[in-house]
Amino acid sequence: MIPAGEAQKPIGVFDSGLGGLTVLKAIMSRLPHENTVYFGDSGRAPYGMKSPETIVKFSRQNMRFLQEQKVKMIVIACNTASSCAYEDIREKAGVPVVEVVAPGAREAVRRTRNGRIGVIGTRGTVDSAVYIRAIKRYAPDDIFIAQQACPLFVGLAEEGWWTGDITRQVAEIYLAPLLKQQIDTLVLGCTHYPLLAGLIAKTAGPDVCLINAGNNVADEVWQTLASAGLLNEDAGTAGHAYYTSDSVQQFKRLGGAFLAQPIVQAERIDIEQY
Amino acid sequence: MIPAGEAQKPIGVFDSGLGGLTVLKAIMSRLPHENTVYFGDSGRAPYGMKSPETIVKFSRQNMRFLQEQKVKMIVIACNTASSCAYEDIREKAGVPVVEVVAPGAREAVRRTRNGRIGVIGTRGTVDSAVYIRAIKRYAPDDIFIAQQACPLFVGLAEEGWWTGDITRQVAEIYLAPLLKQQIDTLVLGCTHYPLLAGLIAKTAGPDVCLINAGNNVADEVWQTLASAGLLNEDAGTAGHAYYTSDSVQQFKRLGGAFLAQPIVQAERIDIEQY
Repeated sequence: MIPAGEAQKPIGVFDSGLGGLTVLKAIMSRLPHENTVYFGDSGRAPYGMKSPETIVKFSRQNMRFLQEQKVKMIVIACNTASSCAYEDIREKAGVPVVEVVAPGAREAVRRTRNGRIGVIGTRGTVDSAVYIRAIKRYAPDDIFIAQQACPLFVGLAEEGWWTGDITRQVAEIYLAPLLKQQIDTLVLGCTHYPLLAGLIAKTAGPDVCLINAGNNVADEVWQTLASAGLLNEDAGTAGHAYYTSDSVQQFKRLGGAFLAQPIVQAERIDIEQY
Repeated sequence: MIPAGEAQKPIGVFDSGLGGLTVLKAIMSRLPHENTVYFGDSGRAPYGMKSPETIVKFSRQNMRFLQEQKVKMIVIACNTASSCAYEDIREKAGVPVVEVVAPGAREAVRRTRNGRIGVIGTRGTVDSAVYIRAIKRYAPDDIFIAQQACPLFVGLAEEGWWTGDITRQVAEIYLAPLLKQQIDTLVLGCTHYPLLAGLIAKTAGPDVCLINAGNNVADEVWQTLASAGLLNEDAGTAGHAYYTSDSVQQFKRLGGAFLAQPIVQAERIDIEQY
Protein backbone atom coordinates (compact mmCIF):
# COMPACT_ATOMS: atom_id res chain seq x y z
CA MET A 1 0.00 0.00 0.00
CA ILE A 2 1.52 3.34 -1.05
CA PRO A 3 0.98 6.05 1.60
CA ALA A 4 -1.06 9.05 0.42
CA GLY A 5 1.05 11.85 -0.99
CA GLU A 6 3.94 9.53 -1.72
CA ALA A 7 3.49 9.89 -5.49
CA GLN A 8 3.50 13.69 -5.24
CA LYS A 9 7.00 13.65 -3.81
CA PRO A 10 9.67 14.84 -6.22
CA ILE A 11 12.14 12.78 -8.23
CA GLY A 12 15.64 13.65 -7.02
CA VAL A 13 18.41 14.00 -9.57
CA PHE A 14 22.07 14.65 -8.82
CA ASP A 15 25.07 15.23 -11.01
CA SER A 16 28.61 16.53 -10.64
CA GLY A 17 27.44 19.76 -12.22
CA LEU A 18 25.41 20.82 -15.20
CA GLY A 19 25.56 17.81 -17.52
CA GLY A 20 22.82 15.98 -15.63
CA LEU A 21 20.42 18.69 -16.74
CA THR A 22 20.36 16.97 -20.15
CA VAL A 23 19.05 13.88 -18.32
CA LEU A 24 16.57 15.96 -16.31
CA LYS A 25 15.38 17.50 -19.57
CA ALA A 26 14.57 14.02 -20.92
CA ILE A 27 12.80 13.08 -17.66
CA MET A 28 10.72 16.28 -17.67
CA SER A 29 9.70 15.63 -21.24
CA ARG A 30 8.81 11.94 -20.64
CA LEU A 31 7.07 12.55 -17.27
CA PRO A 32 5.67 16.08 -17.43
CA HIS A 33 3.59 15.75 -14.25
CA GLU A 34 6.46 14.82 -11.96
CA ASN A 35 7.94 17.24 -9.45
CA THR A 36 11.73 17.23 -9.50
CA VAL A 37 14.66 18.36 -7.36
CA TYR A 38 18.03 18.75 -9.06
CA PHE A 39 21.36 19.06 -7.30
CA GLY A 40 24.44 19.96 -9.35
CA ASP A 41 27.70 19.59 -7.43
CA SER A 42 29.55 22.18 -9.51
CA GLY A 43 31.57 23.28 -6.48
CA ARG A 44 33.36 19.93 -6.53
CA ALA A 45 33.14 19.21 -10.25
CA PRO A 46 34.49 17.61 -12.31
CA TYR A 47 34.13 14.12 -10.88
CA GLY A 48 35.79 12.53 -13.92
CA MET A 49 39.36 12.52 -12.61
CA LYS A 50 38.69 11.88 -8.92
CA SER A 51 39.27 8.55 -7.20
CA PRO A 52 36.41 6.06 -6.66
CA GLU A 53 36.49 6.59 -2.87
CA THR A 54 36.12 10.34 -3.31
CA ILE A 55 33.21 9.79 -5.72
CA VAL A 56 31.44 7.48 -3.26
CA LYS A 57 31.87 10.00 -0.46
CA PHE A 58 30.52 12.86 -2.60
CA SER A 59 27.62 10.73 -3.88
CA ARG A 60 26.56 9.86 -0.33
CA GLN A 61 26.50 13.54 0.58
CA ASN A 62 24.43 14.30 -2.53
CA MET A 63 22.07 11.44 -1.61
CA ARG A 64 21.64 12.76 1.94
CA PHE A 65 20.77 16.19 0.61
CA LEU A 66 18.13 14.69 -1.71
CA GLN A 67 16.76 12.53 1.12
CA GLU A 68 16.28 15.72 3.11
CA GLN A 69 14.17 17.00 0.18
CA LYS A 70 11.98 13.89 0.68
CA VAL A 71 12.42 12.53 -2.83
CA LYS A 72 10.64 9.33 -3.88
CA MET A 73 13.46 8.26 -6.19
CA ILE A 74 17.07 9.17 -6.89
CA VAL A 75 18.54 9.45 -10.38
CA ILE A 76 22.33 9.47 -10.55
CA ALA A 77 22.69 11.59 -13.68
CA CYS A 78 26.47 11.40 -13.81
CA ASN A 79 28.42 8.64 -15.53
CA THR A 80 31.32 8.74 -13.09
CA ALA A 81 29.07 8.58 -10.03
CA SER A 82 26.96 5.88 -11.70
CA SER A 83 30.02 3.74 -12.28
CA CYS A 84 31.59 4.22 -8.84
CA ALA A 85 28.72 4.73 -6.44
CA TYR A 86 25.53 3.11 -7.77
CA GLU A 87 25.68 -0.05 -5.62
CA ASP A 88 26.51 1.97 -2.53
CA ILE A 89 23.73 4.51 -3.06
CA ARG A 90 21.15 1.85 -3.95
CA GLU A 91 21.88 0.11 -0.66
CA LYS A 92 21.61 3.27 1.41
CA ALA A 93 18.99 5.39 -0.35
CA GLY A 94 15.79 3.76 0.93
CA VAL A 95 14.11 4.74 -2.38
CA PRO A 96 14.53 3.36 -5.91
CA VAL A 97 17.76 4.47 -7.61
CA VAL A 98 18.29 4.79 -11.37
CA GLU A 99 21.68 5.39 -12.93
CA VAL A 100 22.74 6.37 -16.44
CA VAL A 101 25.19 3.72 -17.62
CA ALA A 102 23.01 0.60 -17.98
CA PRO A 103 20.27 2.28 -20.08
CA GLY A 104 22.84 3.57 -22.59
CA ALA A 105 24.70 0.25 -22.73
CA ARG A 106 21.47 -1.69 -23.29
CA GLU A 107 20.34 0.66 -26.06
CA ALA A 108 23.72 0.37 -27.80
CA VAL A 109 23.47 -3.41 -27.84
CA ARG A 110 19.91 -3.15 -29.23
CA ARG A 111 21.00 -0.78 -31.99
CA THR A 112 24.28 -2.18 -33.28
CA ARG A 113 24.08 -4.22 -36.48
CA ASN A 114 27.75 -5.11 -36.94
CA GLY A 115 28.49 -5.71 -33.23
CA ARG A 116 31.07 -2.89 -33.09
CA ILE A 117 30.29 -0.25 -30.46
CA GLY A 118 32.22 2.90 -29.64
CA VAL A 119 32.08 4.66 -26.27
CA ILE A 120 33.20 8.22 -25.57
CA GLY A 121 33.39 9.74 -22.10
CA THR A 122 35.59 11.49 -19.57
CA ARG A 123 38.98 10.00 -18.71
CA GLY A 124 37.47 8.69 -15.46
CA THR A 125 34.58 6.91 -17.19
CA VAL A 126 36.86 5.39 -19.83
CA ASP A 127 39.48 4.25 -17.31
CA SER A 128 36.81 2.69 -15.12
CA ALA A 129 35.71 0.54 -18.12
CA VAL A 130 32.17 0.76 -16.75
CA TYR A 131 30.59 0.79 -20.22
CA ILE A 132 32.59 -2.24 -21.29
CA ARG A 133 31.28 -4.20 -18.31
CA ALA A 134 27.73 -2.92 -18.83
CA ILE A 135 27.67 -3.66 -22.57
CA LYS A 136 29.04 -7.16 -21.98
CA ARG A 137 26.20 -7.82 -19.56
CA TYR A 138 23.70 -7.35 -22.40
CA ALA A 139 25.70 -8.58 -25.37
CA PRO A 140 27.12 -11.82 -26.73
CA ASP A 141 30.76 -12.48 -25.97
CA ASP A 142 32.03 -11.55 -29.40
CA ILE A 143 30.93 -7.93 -29.28
CA PHE A 144 33.70 -5.42 -30.04
CA ILE A 145 33.98 -2.26 -27.93
CA ALA A 146 36.36 0.65 -28.55
CA GLN A 147 36.66 3.50 -26.06
CA GLN A 148 37.97 7.03 -26.35
CA ALA A 149 38.36 9.66 -23.62
CA CYS A 150 37.35 13.13 -24.83
CA PRO A 151 38.35 15.40 -21.92
CA LEU A 152 37.98 18.64 -23.87
CA PHE A 153 34.33 18.04 -24.80
CA VAL A 154 33.12 19.09 -21.34
CA GLY A 155 34.93 22.42 -21.52
CA LEU A 156 33.73 23.02 -25.08
CA ALA A 157 30.13 22.23 -24.08
CA GLU A 158 30.29 24.57 -21.07
CA GLU A 159 31.94 27.30 -23.11
CA GLY A 160 28.97 27.13 -25.51
CA TRP A 161 31.15 26.17 -28.47
CA TRP A 162 28.72 23.51 -29.71
CA THR A 163 29.44 24.07 -33.39
CA GLY A 164 32.24 25.65 -35.34
CA ASP A 165 35.66 24.81 -36.60
CA ILE A 166 37.53 24.28 -33.35
CA THR A 167 35.07 21.82 -31.87
CA ARG A 168 34.83 20.01 -35.22
CA GLN A 169 38.62 19.58 -35.30
CA VAL A 170 38.67 18.33 -31.71
CA ALA A 171 35.88 15.87 -32.54
CA GLU A 172 37.75 14.64 -35.61
CA ILE A 173 40.84 13.90 -33.51
CA TYR A 174 38.89 12.14 -30.78
CA LEU A 175 36.65 10.10 -33.10
CA ALA A 176 39.27 9.06 -35.68
CA PRO A 177 40.50 5.96 -33.79
CA LEU A 178 36.91 4.79 -33.23
CA LEU A 179 35.87 5.29 -36.86
CA LYS A 180 38.95 3.40 -37.97
CA GLN A 181 37.57 0.48 -35.96
CA GLN A 182 34.36 0.66 -38.06
CA ILE A 183 31.99 1.13 -35.15
CA ASP A 184 28.35 1.53 -36.19
CA THR A 185 27.06 2.69 -32.80
CA LEU A 186 28.51 5.40 -30.55
CA VAL A 187 27.53 5.85 -26.90
CA LEU A 188 27.67 9.42 -25.57
CA GLY A 189 29.05 8.31 -22.21
CA CYS A 190 28.99 11.73 -20.58
CA THR A 191 25.95 13.87 -19.86
CA HIS A 192 27.66 16.94 -21.30
CA TYR A 193 27.98 15.43 -24.74
CA PRO A 194 24.33 15.75 -25.90
CA LEU A 195 25.07 19.46 -26.35
CA LEU A 196 27.65 18.51 -28.97
CA ALA A 197 25.51 15.71 -30.44
CA GLY A 198 24.85 17.48 -33.75
CA LEU A 199 28.52 18.03 -34.39
CA ILE A 200 29.52 14.56 -33.16
CA ALA A 201 26.90 12.97 -35.43
CA LYS A 202 28.18 14.93 -38.42
CA THR A 203 31.77 13.96 -37.67
CA ALA A 204 30.89 10.30 -37.15
CA GLY A 205 28.91 10.19 -40.41
CA PRO A 206 25.48 8.83 -41.32
CA ASP A 207 26.42 5.18 -40.78
CA VAL A 208 27.01 5.61 -37.05
CA CYS A 209 24.05 5.58 -34.67
CA LEU A 210 24.47 7.94 -31.70
CA ILE A 211 23.22 6.78 -28.28
CA ASN A 212 22.14 9.64 -26.02
CA ALA A 213 21.04 7.71 -22.96
CA GLY A 214 18.88 10.54 -21.58
CA ASN A 215 15.72 9.19 -23.22
CA ASN A 216 16.47 5.64 -22.11
CA VAL A 217 17.05 6.82 -18.56
CA ALA A 218 13.70 8.63 -18.67
CA ASP A 219 12.04 5.40 -19.82
CA GLU A 220 13.62 3.54 -16.92
CA VAL A 221 12.47 6.21 -14.47
CA TRP A 222 8.91 5.85 -15.81
CA GLN A 223 9.07 2.05 -15.60
CA THR A 224 10.44 2.06 -12.07
CA LEU A 225 7.84 4.52 -10.80
CA ALA A 226 5.01 2.72 -12.60
CA SER A 227 5.88 -0.66 -11.18
CA ALA A 228 6.16 0.83 -7.67
CA GLY A 229 2.80 2.63 -8.05
CA LEU A 230 4.59 5.94 -7.60
CA LEU A 231 3.71 7.79 -10.82
CA ASN A 232 2.27 11.20 -10.05
CA GLU A 233 -1.26 11.26 -11.52
CA ASP A 234 -1.82 14.83 -10.33
CA ALA A 235 -2.05 16.81 -13.56
CA GLY A 236 -1.32 20.18 -11.93
CA THR A 237 1.76 22.17 -12.86
CA ALA A 238 4.87 20.24 -11.84
CA GLY A 239 7.40 22.00 -9.62
CA HIS A 240 11.11 21.96 -10.36
CA ALA A 241 13.70 22.99 -7.77
CA TYR A 242 17.39 23.53 -8.51
CA TYR A 243 20.31 23.47 -6.08
CA THR A 244 24.02 23.88 -6.66
CA SER A 245 27.15 23.80 -4.51
CA ASP A 246 28.55 26.67 -6.54
CA SER A 247 27.68 30.11 -7.87
CA VAL A 248 23.93 30.38 -8.53
CA GLN A 249 24.53 32.95 -11.23
CA GLN A 250 26.84 30.56 -13.11
CA PHE A 251 24.40 27.67 -12.65
CA LYS A 252 21.50 29.65 -14.04
CA ARG A 253 23.52 31.13 -16.90
CA LEU A 254 24.99 27.85 -18.20
CA GLY A 255 22.28 25.52 -16.94
CA GLY A 256 19.56 27.07 -19.06
CA ALA A 257 21.45 25.92 -22.15
CA PHE A 258 21.68 22.33 -20.89
CA LEU A 259 18.00 22.27 -19.97
CA ALA A 260 16.99 24.11 -23.14
CA GLN A 261 14.81 26.42 -21.02
CA PRO A 262 15.62 29.19 -18.57
CA ILE A 263 16.32 28.35 -14.92
CA VAL A 264 14.57 31.15 -13.07
CA GLN A 265 15.34 30.13 -9.50
CA ALA A 266 18.23 28.18 -7.98
CA GLU A 267 19.71 27.99 -4.51
CA ARG A 268 23.24 27.44 -3.29
CA ILE A 269 23.81 24.85 -0.56
CA ASP A 270 26.83 23.78 1.48
CA ILE A 271 27.06 20.13 0.45
CA GLU A 272 29.99 19.45 2.81
CA GLN A 273 27.53 19.64 5.71
CA TYR A 274 25.72 16.50 4.54
CA MET B 1 69.37 33.30 16.48
CA ILE B 2 68.14 30.57 14.11
CA PRO B 3 67.99 27.14 15.82
CA ALA B 4 70.29 24.51 14.28
CA GLY B 5 68.59 22.45 11.56
CA GLU B 6 65.94 25.08 10.94
CA ALA B 7 67.32 25.88 7.46
CA GLN B 8 67.25 22.21 6.48
CA LYS B 9 63.50 22.07 6.97
CA PRO B 10 61.50 21.91 3.73
CA ILE B 11 59.59 24.64 1.97
CA GLY B 12 55.90 23.72 1.97
CA VAL B 13 53.85 24.39 -1.16
CA PHE B 14 50.13 23.83 -1.56
CA ASP B 15 47.77 24.17 -4.49
CA SER B 16 44.26 23.09 -5.42
CA GLY B 17 45.81 20.43 -7.67
CA LEU B 18 48.55 20.17 -10.25
CA GLY B 19 49.00 23.75 -11.47
CA GLY B 20 51.11 24.70 -8.47
CA LEU B 21 53.76 22.30 -9.71
CA THR B 22 54.74 24.96 -12.27
CA VAL B 23 55.46 27.24 -9.29
CA LEU B 24 57.34 24.47 -7.50
CA LYS B 25 59.39 23.95 -10.66
CA ALA B 26 60.46 27.60 -10.59
CA ILE B 27 61.32 27.34 -6.89
CA MET B 28 63.38 24.17 -7.42
CA SER B 29 65.26 25.81 -10.24
CA ARG B 30 65.94 29.07 -8.30
CA LEU B 31 66.77 27.30 -4.98
CA PRO B 32 68.19 23.89 -5.95
CA HIS B 33 69.41 23.07 -2.43
CA GLU B 34 66.05 23.44 -0.74
CA ASN B 35 63.99 20.48 0.43
CA THR B 36 60.32 20.79 -0.52
CA VAL B 37 56.96 19.28 0.37
CA TYR B 38 54.12 19.71 -2.13
CA PHE B 39 50.44 19.13 -1.41
CA GLY B 40 47.97 19.14 -4.33
CA ASP B 41 44.33 19.15 -3.24
CA SER B 42 43.07 17.47 -6.44
CA GLY B 43 40.31 15.69 -4.50
CA ARG B 44 38.63 19.05 -3.89
CA ALA B 45 39.77 20.86 -7.05
CA PRO B 46 39.06 23.20 -8.66
CA TYR B 47 38.97 25.99 -6.08
CA GLY B 48 38.09 28.63 -8.69
CA MET B 49 34.33 28.80 -8.17
CA LYS B 50 34.07 27.95 -4.48
CA SER B 51 33.02 30.46 -1.86
CA PRO B 52 35.71 32.42 0.03
CA GLU B 53 34.76 30.71 3.31
CA THR B 54 35.27 27.29 1.76
CA ILE B 55 38.64 28.36 0.35
CA VAL B 56 39.75 29.63 3.76
CA LYS B 57 38.66 26.36 5.39
CA PHE B 58 40.48 24.25 2.80
CA SER B 59 43.60 26.44 2.99
CA ARG B 60 43.75 26.09 6.79
CA GLN B 61 43.59 22.31 6.44
CA ASN B 62 46.34 22.40 3.82
CA MET B 63 48.39 24.62 6.13
CA ARG B 64 47.96 22.25 9.08
CA PHE B 65 49.11 19.34 6.95
CA LEU B 66 52.23 21.26 5.91
CA GLN B 67 52.87 22.33 9.51
CA GLU B 68 52.84 18.66 10.44
CA GLN B 69 55.61 18.20 7.84
CA LYS B 70 57.58 20.82 9.81
CA VAL B 71 58.01 23.24 6.93
CA LYS B 72 59.98 26.46 7.40
CA MET B 73 57.80 28.42 4.96
CA ILE B 74 54.49 28.05 3.16
CA VAL B 75 53.91 28.95 -0.48
CA ILE B 76 50.27 29.29 -1.56
CA ALA B 77 50.70 28.25 -5.21
CA CYS B 78 47.08 28.76 -6.18
CA ASN B 79 45.58 32.00 -7.41
CA THR B 80 42.21 31.46 -5.76
CA ALA B 81 43.63 30.50 -2.37
CA SER B 82 46.10 33.39 -2.59
CA SER B 83 43.28 35.83 -3.11
CA CYS B 84 40.93 34.46 -0.44
CA ALA B 85 43.14 33.00 2.29
CA TYR B 86 46.53 34.71 2.31
CA GLU B 87 45.86 37.04 5.26
CA ASP B 88 44.33 34.24 7.28
CA ILE B 89 47.14 31.77 6.63
CA ARG B 90 49.84 34.40 7.23
CA GLU B 91 48.33 35.10 10.65
CA LYS B 92 48.10 31.43 11.64
CA ALA B 93 51.06 29.74 9.94
CA GLY B 94 53.83 30.65 12.40
CA VAL B 95 56.25 30.62 9.43
CA PRO B 96 56.69 33.04 6.51
CA VAL B 97 53.98 32.77 3.82
CA VAL B 98 54.35 33.67 0.14
CA GLU B 99 51.45 33.82 -2.32
CA VAL B 100 51.29 34.02 -6.13
CA VAL B 101 49.12 37.01 -7.01
CA ALA B 102 51.18 39.95 -5.73
CA PRO B 103 54.47 38.88 -7.41
CA GLY B 104 52.75 38.61 -10.81
CA ALA B 105 50.88 41.87 -10.37
CA ARG B 106 54.04 43.72 -9.28
CA GLU B 107 56.04 42.33 -12.20
CA ALA B 108 53.32 43.36 -14.67
CA VAL B 109 53.41 46.93 -13.36
CA ARG B 110 57.23 46.94 -13.63
CA ARG B 111 57.15 45.68 -17.20
CA THR B 112 54.36 47.62 -18.86
CA ARG B 113 55.45 50.58 -20.95
CA ASN B 114 52.10 51.80 -22.18
CA GLY B 115 50.21 51.18 -18.92
CA ARG B 116 47.85 48.63 -20.53
CA ILE B 117 47.90 45.24 -18.83
CA GLY B 118 45.94 42.10 -19.74
CA VAL B 119 45.11 39.32 -17.29
CA ILE B 120 44.00 35.81 -18.23
CA GLY B 121 42.80 33.23 -15.73
CA THR B 122 40.01 30.88 -14.76
CA ARG B 123 36.46 32.21 -14.60
CA GLY B 124 36.81 32.27 -10.79
CA THR B 125 40.00 34.33 -10.79
CA VAL B 126 38.62 36.77 -13.34
CA ASP B 127 35.29 37.20 -11.52
CA SER B 128 37.08 37.75 -8.21
CA ALA B 129 38.98 40.70 -9.77
CA VAL B 130 41.92 39.82 -7.51
CA TYR B 131 44.51 40.84 -10.11
CA ILE B 132 42.77 44.15 -10.69
CA ARG B 133 43.00 44.96 -6.99
CA ALA B 134 46.61 43.74 -6.77
CA ILE B 135 47.78 45.66 -9.86
CA LYS B 136 46.11 48.84 -8.59
CA ARG B 137 48.06 48.53 -5.35
CA TYR B 138 51.33 48.88 -7.27
CA ALA B 139 50.27 51.11 -10.13
CA PRO B 140 49.20 54.68 -10.70
CA ASP B 141 45.48 55.29 -10.90
CA ASP B 142 45.37 55.63 -14.65
CA ILE B 143 46.55 52.10 -15.42
CA PHE B 144 44.28 50.15 -17.80
CA ILE B 145 43.52 46.49 -17.05
CA ALA B 146 41.59 44.11 -19.34
CA GLN B 147 40.67 40.62 -18.16
CA GLN B 148 39.70 37.47 -20.07
CA ALA B 149 38.58 34.12 -18.67
CA CYS B 150 40.08 31.21 -20.66
CA PRO B 151 38.25 28.14 -19.30
CA LEU B 152 39.48 25.78 -22.04
CA PHE B 153 43.17 26.43 -21.35
CA VAL B 154 43.19 24.19 -18.26
CA GLY B 155 41.75 21.27 -20.24
CA LEU B 156 44.15 21.84 -23.14
CA ALA B 157 47.11 21.98 -20.73
CA GLU B 158 46.05 18.77 -18.99
CA GLU B 159 45.39 17.06 -22.35
CA GLY B 160 48.98 17.83 -23.35
CA TRP B 161 47.90 19.89 -26.38
CA TRP B 162 50.45 22.61 -25.68
CA THR B 163 51.07 23.40 -29.33
CA GLY B 164 49.21 22.78 -32.57
CA ASP B 165 46.41 24.29 -34.57
CA ILE B 166 43.51 23.77 -32.21
CA THR B 167 45.12 25.36 -29.20
CA ARG B 168 46.39 28.19 -31.39
CA GLN B 169 42.83 28.88 -32.61
CA VAL B 170 41.47 28.80 -29.06
CA ALA B 171 44.20 31.19 -27.95
CA GLU B 172 43.41 33.54 -30.84
CA ILE B 173 39.76 33.69 -29.79
CA TYR B 174 40.55 34.27 -26.10
CA LEU B 175 43.31 36.83 -26.69
CA ALA B 176 41.62 38.84 -29.45
CA PRO B 177 39.65 41.15 -27.12
CA LEU B 178 42.80 41.84 -25.06
CA LEU B 179 44.97 42.52 -28.11
CA LYS B 180 42.32 44.87 -29.44
CA GLN B 181 42.81 46.85 -26.23
CA GLN B 182 46.50 47.18 -27.13
CA ILE B 183 47.85 45.60 -23.98
CA ASP B 184 51.64 45.33 -23.91
CA THR B 185 51.82 43.02 -20.87
CA LEU B 186 49.89 39.82 -20.22
CA VAL B 187 49.66 38.13 -16.81
CA LEU B 188 49.26 34.34 -16.85
CA GLY B 189 46.86 34.38 -13.91
CA CYS B 190 46.51 30.60 -13.60
CA THR B 191 49.25 28.17 -12.67
CA HIS B 192 48.22 25.85 -15.52
CA TYR B 193 48.98 28.40 -18.21
CA PRO B 194 52.81 28.25 -18.18
CA LEU B 195 52.42 24.95 -20.07
CA LEU B 196 50.86 26.92 -22.93
CA ALA B 197 53.21 29.91 -22.57
CA GLY B 198 55.02 29.31 -25.87
CA LEU B 199 51.83 29.27 -27.85
CA ILE B 200 50.28 32.16 -25.92
CA ALA B 201 53.41 34.26 -26.52
CA LYS B 202 53.31 33.50 -30.24
CA THR B 203 49.62 34.38 -30.44
CA ALA B 204 50.06 37.58 -28.45
CA GLY B 205 52.96 38.63 -30.67
CA PRO B 206 56.43 40.04 -29.95
CA ASP B 207 55.12 43.34 -28.55
CA VAL B 208 53.40 41.70 -25.59
CA CYS B 209 55.44 40.74 -22.54
CA LEU B 210 54.19 37.56 -20.83
CA ILE B 211 54.23 37.46 -17.03
CA ASN B 212 54.66 33.93 -15.67
CA ALA B 213 54.69 34.68 -11.97
CA GLY B 214 56.46 31.41 -11.08
CA ASN B 215 59.89 33.00 -11.41
CA ASN B 216 58.84 36.06 -9.42
CA VAL B 217 57.38 33.85 -6.70
CA ALA B 218 60.67 31.93 -6.59
CA ASP B 219 62.54 35.24 -6.23
CA GLU B 220 60.28 36.21 -3.36
CA VAL B 221 60.82 32.84 -1.69
CA TRP B 222 64.59 33.34 -1.98
CA GLN B 223 64.34 36.88 -0.62
CA THR B 224 62.15 35.88 2.32
CA LEU B 225 64.37 32.96 3.31
CA ALA B 226 67.54 35.01 2.88
CA SER B 227 66.32 37.83 5.07
CA ALA B 228 65.20 35.35 7.74
CA GLY B 229 68.56 33.53 7.60
CA LEU B 230 66.74 30.37 6.56
CA LEU B 231 68.40 29.57 3.20
CA ASN B 232 69.63 25.98 3.16
CA GLU B 233 73.39 26.11 2.66
CA ASP B 234 73.67 22.33 2.76
CA ALA B 235 74.71 21.40 -0.80
CA GLY B 236 73.61 17.76 -0.54
CA THR B 237 70.85 16.41 -2.76
CA ALA B 238 67.59 18.12 -1.97
CA GLY B 239 64.57 15.97 -1.10
CA HIS B 240 61.16 16.51 -2.66
CA ALA B 241 58.01 14.96 -1.24
CA TYR B 242 54.60 14.95 -2.99
CA TYR B 243 51.17 14.51 -1.44
CA THR B 244 47.72 14.58 -3.01
CA SER B 245 44.15 14.25 -1.76
CA ASP B 246 43.27 12.17 -4.83
CA SER B 247 44.55 9.34 -7.03
CA VAL B 248 48.33 9.00 -6.78
CA GLN B 249 48.52 7.44 -10.24
CA GLN B 250 46.78 10.42 -11.81
CA PHE B 251 48.95 12.85 -9.86
CA LYS B 252 52.13 11.19 -11.02
CA ARG B 253 51.00 10.81 -14.63
CA LEU B 254 49.89 14.42 -15.19
CA GLY B 255 52.10 16.02 -12.57
CA GLY B 256 55.32 15.00 -14.29
CA ALA B 257 54.36 17.19 -17.26
CA PHE B 258 53.77 20.22 -15.04
CA LEU B 259 57.05 19.71 -13.21
CA ALA B 260 58.93 18.85 -16.41
CA GLN B 261 60.44 15.86 -14.64
CA PRO B 262 59.00 12.54 -13.51
CA ILE B 263 57.33 12.27 -10.10
CA VAL B 264 58.55 8.92 -8.87
CA GLN B 265 56.89 8.86 -5.47
CA ALA B 266 53.69 10.46 -4.18
CA GLU B 267 51.39 9.70 -1.28
CA ARG B 268 47.69 10.11 -0.83
CA ILE B 269 46.43 11.77 2.36
CA ASP B 270 42.98 12.41 3.83
CA ILE B 271 43.04 16.20 4.04
CA GLU B 272 39.63 16.37 5.75
CA GLN B 273 41.31 15.06 8.91
CA TYR B 274 43.35 18.24 9.29
